Amino acid sequence: MQEFSPMNRGFTSYRSPRTIALVGKYHSQEIAESLRRLAEYLYERGASVFIERETSENIGKKVDLSRWVTCGFNDIGAHADLAIVLGGDGTMLNAARRLARYCVPLVGVNQGRLGFMTDIARDDMLTCMDDLLDGRFTPENRMLLAAEVTRDGKEIASNMALNDVVIDKGAIGRMIEFELFINGEFIYNLRADGMVVSTPTGSTAYSMSAGGPILNPTLTGIALVPLCPHALTNRPIIVNDNTDIELRIATADDPRVHFDGQVTLDLLPGDCVRLRRSEHTICFLHPPGYSYFAMLRQKLQWSERPKGP
Amino acid sequence: MQEFSPMNRGFTSYRSPRTIALVGKYHSQEIAESLRRLAEYLYERGASVFIERETSENIGKKVDLSRWVTCGFNDIGAHADLAIVLGGDGTMLNAARRLARYCVPLVGVNQGRLGFMTDIARDDMLTCMDDLLDGRFTPENRMLLAAEVTRDGKEIASNMALNDVVIDKGAIGRMIEFELFINGEFIYNLRADGMVVSTPTGSTAYSMSAGGPILNPTLTGIALVPLCPHALTNRPIIVNDNTDIELRIATADDPRVHFDGQVTLDLLPGDCVRLRRSEHTICFLHPPGYSYFAMLRQKLQWSERPKGP
Amino acid sequence: MQEFSPMNRGFTSYRSPRTIALVGKYHSQEIAESLRRLAEYLYERGASVFIERETSENIGKKVDLSRWVTCGFNDIGAHADLAIVLGGDGTMLNAARRLARYCVPLVGVNQGRLGFMTDIARDDMLTCMDDLLDGRFTPENRMLLAAEVTRDGKEIASNMALNDVVIDKGAIGRMIEFELFINGEFIYNLRADGMVVSTPTGSTAYSMSAGGPILNPTLTGIALVPLCPHALTNRPIIVNDNTDIELRIATADDPRVHFDGQVTLDLLPGDCVRLRRSEHTICFLHPPGYSYFAMLRQKLQWSERPKGP
Amino acid sequence: MQEFSPMNRGFTSYRSPRTIALVGKYHSQEIAESLRRLAEYLYERGASVFIERETSENIGKKVDLSRWVTCGFNDIGAHADLAIVLGGDGTMLNAARRLARYCVPLVGVNQGRLGFMTDIARDDMLTCMDDLLDGRFTPENRMLLAAEVTRDGKEIASNMALNDVVIDKGAIGRMIEFELFINGEFIYNLRADGMVVSTPTGSTAYSMSAGGPILNPTLTGIALVPLCPHALTNRPIIVNDNTDIELRIATADDPRVHFDGQVTLDLLPGDCVRLRRSEHTICFLHPPGYSYFAMLRQKLQWSERPKGP
Repeated sequence: MQEFSPMNRGFTSYRSPRTIALVGKYHSQEIAESLRRLAEYLYERGASVFIERETSENIGKKVDLSRWVTCGFNDIGAHADLAIVLGGDGTMLNAARRLARYCVPLVGVNQGRLGFMTDIARDDMLTCMDDLLDGRFTPENRMLLAAEVTRDGKEIASNMALNDVVIDKGAIGRMIEFELFINGEFIYNLRADGMVVSTPTGSTAYSMSAGGPILNPTLTGIALVPLCPHALTNRPIIVNDNTDIELRIATADDPRVHFDGQVTLDLLPGDCVRLRRSEHTICFLHPPGYSYFAMLRQKLQWSERPKGP
Repeated sequence: MQEFSPMNRGFTSYRSPRTIALVGKYHSQEIAESLRRLAEYLYERGASVFIERETSENIGKKVDLSRWVTCGFNDIGAHADLAIVLGGDGTMLNAARRLARYCVPLVGVNQGRLGFMTDIARDDMLTCMDDLLDGRFTPENRMLLAAEVTRDGKEIASNMALNDVVIDKGAIGRMIEFELFINGEFIYNLRADGMVVSTPTGSTAYSMSAGGPILNPTLTGIALVPLCPHALTNRPIIVNDNTDIELRIATADDPRVHFDGQVTLDLLPGDCVRLRRSEHTICFLHPPGYSYFAMLRQKLQWSERPKGP
Repeated sequence: MQEFSPMNRGFTSYRSPRTIALVGKYHSQEIAESLRRLAEYLYERGASVFIERETSENIGKKVDLSRWVTCGFNDIGAHADLAIVLGGDGTMLNAARRLARYCVPLVGVNQGRLGFMTDIARDDMLTCMDDLLDGRFTPENRMLLAAEVTRDGKEIASNMALNDVVIDKGAIGRMIEFELFINGEFIYNLRADGMVVSTPTGSTAYSMSAGGPILNPTLTGIALVPLCPHALTNRPIIVNDNTDIELRIATADDPRVHFDGQVTLDLLPGDCVRLRRSEHTICFLHPPGYSYFAMLRQKLQWSERPKGP
Repeated sequence: MQEFSPMNRGFTSYRSPRTIALVGKYHSQEIAESLRRLAEYLYERGASVFIERETSENIGKKVDLSRWVTCGFNDIGAHADLAIVLGGDGTMLNAARRLARYCVPLVGVNQGRLGFMTDIARDDMLTCMDDLLDGRFTPENRMLLAAEVTRDGKEIASNMALNDVVIDKGAIGRMIEFELFINGEFIYNLRADGMVVSTPTGSTAYSMSAGGPILNPTLTGIALVPLCPHALTNRPIIVNDNTDIELRIATADDPRVHFDGQVTLDLLPGDCVRLRRSEHTICFLHPPGYSYFAMLRQKLQWSERPKGP
């Protein structure tokens, strides 16, 4: 385990995080009380505490958070040494996309059920804060995808994704038809419900439901997983992280593109979605004893070693 | 091979079909000329020929069909001994749903590419008509699904499907959550993109893309195939054709139900889609030498027996 | 729920089972004490008790079973009204193959972990015996496969299987090549590790590991599931239970056929394995409240209905 | 496209290959004549030609090869600038394992059917030789796996594999049970028919039949693909090429390990198979116009771009 030091400042020497932002699951009353306790505990331990604005507006109706400064993601990005996310993997995905450009590390506290990314149990939260403030945390970098959508050669949208970028058929009809290009080379024309382009982080999410493999986060790879492809030989393809991926909608009634399943954009035939590894990286901080595979073993109920006699 | 006699009149004694309806793929100019030639040939051979109204309206712009009587599916159902479908599997699906209640047998002529249901090549069309008029055809019955959609206990829609009834997530968000009941018993709560409920006929269509098995049409079974299920243990289930299947939408932003991928209905949380085998059966007439597995072998490019020396 | 009456005597009128055979997992010391308690309880309740010979020889070293008559499966078949199996699904499979020709119903008691077939928990064993002796049990018939192996046109072996008949590559090399015939028609030439031919009962066993669907036991179907097929279009096929299935080994270094994974036979290129539904049926007796899907839900950890507030 | 220069000499400057070894598929009479023509053509173009000894012994019965020097793989490794393989992917795998330590680049000529690795059609063979001798070839490096088998802590065997290392159940029984360790960490205990550990090159071979994804050869990854796992959550896992993988046989009747499906070794319970990326790399030389994805598109019959009007 390395000592803590925010990734954007190099991870070479120790510096205890002093300014900490809290981000919570919106509309979740469940986390309000945890968030308040966490804020107070961190304050007592000497940290400056911010609460993300929308979190505060949603949660603040239930619990009095008026003593804490609220600010938006941009200010968190500019000023915080660390953001602690209370909620599920969805909350984590949103925070990661918003903060990736600022290199603010994230710590995930789940609401009671282990998440793929929110690996600290609510009950262990305060103990883990001690570890965090004392620098006993393991940083882990996760790649993101950068997506650019073009229509008639002009960019109409761009976004990042920590899990996946999905094109799909939308609400009408059955299949869409699109072309896949890898590093500018035409690969195939696919008729399918769509395609999931997934990072290693996203490989245990929608990509897995669609039949994709698990990519260990230390793999520098991107998974291309067709959704219900018409032809049975269209299997998941894993490419390296230098790859330029382009999906061009050929025929479709109602095509869409989704970023982390949270942001959706309507497409038109002819539109291109261009994907590559983002120049940004998000850093997760894990508590002592964390193991990616131990987390998977628990989530996927893999067999433990048989107990000895 | 049995001699031909329309199924609804018992298939016990031979009677040459005298009144024949032609149904074509809408908006397809390609089939216009084939349709005209077919109509004339059948007329010369002594049959009464009807052209399905929408086919005529679409195709008639290109080819003069004015000498032929046009009529709707209801009149075809009431009067025709047989309907010949020119187009692809989609055209066949539509005709089957429209004619199932009338027990009019169907013959499928493809547009140049073998279909799962349109098994007569356009080039062999006229030869096959001779076989047909002379009674050299094998009837094959295919089951349909009957679906009923209820909201607050009241039926809001009903339909049939020859291939499949699909519930899915529509355009927004990622997963829907629904409950499956079999013969009134709660089976599970599923989070997925949706579910395909498929007949044996539909098992080689969308169901297969979703990971379902091939059901031989002589099997009296129905396949329940989850679409990208969140949990990996939710595998396709095959039940017998006496089974009462019910899907109750629990949580969903934009749920839909699709009948043969051709008719779509918006659902709301709480809606139920109830499925059972239809009391109607559709009869396909196949030309001499037809084999279901030979057709699959060609479509799926299964290996032939190695050639002897 | 029907009242009990052994299936071979018609299931039409009630007759309490008087002669009961006990079959245990061989070499399992764990079940010895349960078996002794069960024998005594049934005796006290007025039944005649037999213990299957190999069970007795294996278990009898640990627990004194000398007061009970021991007999082989043939005598059990001739005289017992019922056989109670203590062990796992493997023990049940063996008993089923041995007793199927005698129509002796089976009851399965697991050793502590729910089986697909051994659905009575050891802790509930005695209570269930009361139900059984009082006729409160639901009979459920399960089909078996009958297999015949021929070499140079002569039968060299035959067997039954309750779960599956598997041909596979044995120990050497990678793939075997074999031809599949259905009702005498050549279907395809397959290069694969082998093929699982499975009953509905076997569909949740090896067939499922190989990618096959779940067949509800009320389905009259047989699953043909290729093992790691070379070509991706060779998907599981489900045929009805009147189907004559033939597998002809074409090229293979070390081909084998396995019956329920318990009996293995070496094959040679040119050998045929011919499969059809057995004329025999095995009857399971289930305790009150048993449900096939509830058992699956527990085994496969399918989601329960979310708890209400 | 880079100019040719054998990889082991740096790939930085052009040097025409002067000493060329020919390796053919053993026992294949079909390639004898091609091999003879190839040898003569290369000789006429000024190259020194060796013929691999076993190739010569097998093929030489049919065609007179007495004018050519024959030598073993070790001498080829020591002296040849290049080896040309005539046969199928299996012949290529064998040559690659034998020559990897010597860094001799390989060129693959197929026997009439495009291979994943033998990408030159026999009919284009002589034209491609001109390209080769003139330096118009693209080098592509492929990783290999290095495997070490230990028993009671002592190494009992080691080997390399270009495609895959497979542990499996052998001929008896159904499943084996083994433990997977990644970088020394226990991952899970698996009950399955076995496991395929595959390079990107092997990802389109047995790994794909077992449900694994396609790994682009530029990905520095290794696929772990369970064979018919008992538990449905045991999905393929892709790790990076720095990973130390260990498989420890726990319970098995007849476990085996296979290298590229060509070399097999019996294992015992307790044995460990330890895998990592080999320090050696094999270099394929591809003709002008070669594309990995174009080859896949042809082999897997992926859809071409629809033709314009």
